[in-house]
Amino acid sequence: MRAGPKNLITDVAGLTIGNAQNERIATGVTVALFEGEAVASVSVTGGAPAGRDLECLAPEAQVEAVHAILLSGGSGFGLDAASGAQAWLRERGRGVVFGRAVIPITPQAICFDLINGGDKDWGRYPPYRELAYEACEAAGADFSLGTAGGGFGATTADLKGGLGSASVVTSAGHTVGALVVVNAIGSAVVGGGPHFWAAPWEIGDEFGGLGAQTHPSTALVWKGQPLTPATTIALVATDAKLTKPQAKRLAIAASGGKSKGLRLAHAIFDGDMVFAASTGRRPLRDAAPEMIELCALASDCLARAIARGVHAATALPFRGALPSWRDRFDGA
Amino acid sequence: MRAGPKNLITDVAGLTIGNAQNERIATGVTVALFEGEAVASVSVTGGAPAGRDLECLAPEAQVEAVHAILLSGGSGFGLDAASGAQAWLRERGRGVVFGRAVIPITPQAICFDLINGGDKDWGRYPPYRELAYEACEAAGADFSLGTAGGGFGATTADLKGGLGSASVVTSAGHTVGALVVVNAIGSAVVGGGPHFWAAPWEIGDEFGGLGAQTHPSTALVWKGQPLTPATTIALVATDAKLTKPQAKRLAIAASGGKSKGLRLAHAIFDGDMVFAASTGRRPLRDAAPEMIELCALASDCLARAIARGVHAATALPFRGALPSWRDRFDGA
Repeated sequence: MRAGPKNLITDVAGLTIGNAQNERIATGVTVALFEGEAVASVSVTGGAPAGRDLECLAPEAQVEAVHAILLSGGSGFGLDAASGAQAWLRERGRGVVFGRAVIPITPQAICFDLINGGDKDWGRYPPYRELAYEACEAAGADFSLGTAGGGFGATTADLKGGLGSASVVTSAGHTVGALVVVNAIGSAVVGGGPHFWAAPWEIGDEFGGLGAQTHPSTALVWKGQPLTPATTIALVATDAKLTKPQAKRLAIAASGGKSKGLRLAHAIFDGDMVFAASTGRRPLRDAAPEMIELCALASDCLARAIARGVHAATALPFRGALPSWRDRFDGA
Repeated sequence: MRAGPKNLITDVAGLTIGNAQNERIATGVTVALFEGEAVASVSVTGGAPAGRDLECLAPEAQVEAVHAILLSGGSGFGLDAASGAQAWLRERGRGVVFGRAVIPITPQAICFDLINGGDKDWGRYPPYRELAYEACEAAGADFSLGTAGGGFGATTADLKGGLGSASVVTSAGHTVGALVVVNAIGSAVVGGGPHFWAAPWEIGDEFGGLGAQTHPSTALVWKGQPLTPATTIALVATDAKLTKPQAKRLAIAASGGKSKGLRLAHAIFDGDMVFAASTGRRPLRDAAPEMIELCALASDCLARAIARGVHAATALPFRGALPSWRDRFDGA
């Protein structure tokens, strides 16, 4: 397996990623902006999902393509973020055109980062709309992982969470990338140690190269009681030209990457969901084997992105904040 | 983690399992019979599913409980099997009662085992209805794994597939069991060797005790072209008393076990689906943590059952039939 040149979702031609964050509030937004548009769908597997403009992503819904996808903190308040991306896109005339009206389609998922030490007393206007606009301004091919963007305030059960990304090139030459806000109810590492659950799928030493454990501890580690809600939200994207039903299948298959990269996923207090998007640059030549490989590697890629997000994170500066992987294990 | 006394789904109080198979046709049926009834739902994740009486399992559908769940071979023809279970149950007056009418609710999934060397020239009457009746007759607490029942004709990409099962007891004392027909488009083992993908979750040496590989090969192995359709179908059951929406969540979470136990799952030619059933023997005392653990361990348990099904299988006697894990690796 070979990662793309940046080992980021932006190895997929036709999209850029932007981050914005507020350090005092300890939250942020990540936006994926598509050049033109992207065919997209979503798979919702968590028991406590919160999203915006997801209904149009059903294979049978009429809207074929989207202009941006957002992953943000803020729980229900974070659903403001899509408004900021809509405003930014509308100013540029990007969206579905109905006569003089231009409507950007900007589906969004959020995660729960309301209990992480940050000052959430934002009054009447949550910060997410402005953060998303800022993230659109910042969007490009390079972006930070770890404590950044939608992953700024993210946590796991035992370590700081964060924003992760990874990419892979299929044997047919298509690129698949994953972007994830790792705010898991469980853990990305085995038994509180440095080894990642995603280790079997690691490419090179992209998250430390420690390899997998022969007999890992399977003791359950999770945010416990009083319950701290969680949610791991992700986007997988490819330059392969997919139909909307194929994008839905890619999202479903990629969801398995959470089960590989985290212990545990798809839980009752998770709002776990995975978007899938096709920028349509490369037609499928032999659809069946190419789709099978895309689906399998998207699942791997999401597991790898989860590990990379935790591996890259730095701790929040608040008293009692969770340590980062680097705090605990770097140089160990 | 501790398995139940038999390490079978029948460690869950309130259900029995029956197998029947036809060696010449190289196919079979496995039935789960519930004492009374079970609250059940299903998660369909494959791209090519085929099921019977699944609509009633939606959380919003009125039917609360089922009387049997069937996993069979035979692809679309196998959907006859539920008729046999209905007949058997009706003769015993078991089902939903409407005045003098008794209607057994018997949802079913099938897998594709039509190209495995067996003689599929069954003429007007496929064997599945009679096999299912026979399986009901045979149902009990003990049943065979491997080349048996619905897994008799099952294959994976590189080894004989089969019927698998495993169980686990949660910290709250609930039992969770998994039953699976492993007929995967991919493989349950790493790189054609003896190590199972499910190794991180193995309890004791339930499938050989070889442990996980530190740096496993992630090369894709699948049934390839010309395409041989596949499908891995499963049931997870628990004695914990669940509502129907909780059963649906259990099914969704357990589906992650396929991503852990197989490389690859949820593919375009899979009809992958997972039923979840509650026999309702033990109320939840503290629903949140108990559900989180049930969901996590059901996912593990399904991964383990997949490995156990392949580990226990014996090869079909036909020329060119896939070798079994024991043929290839036992004593190695």
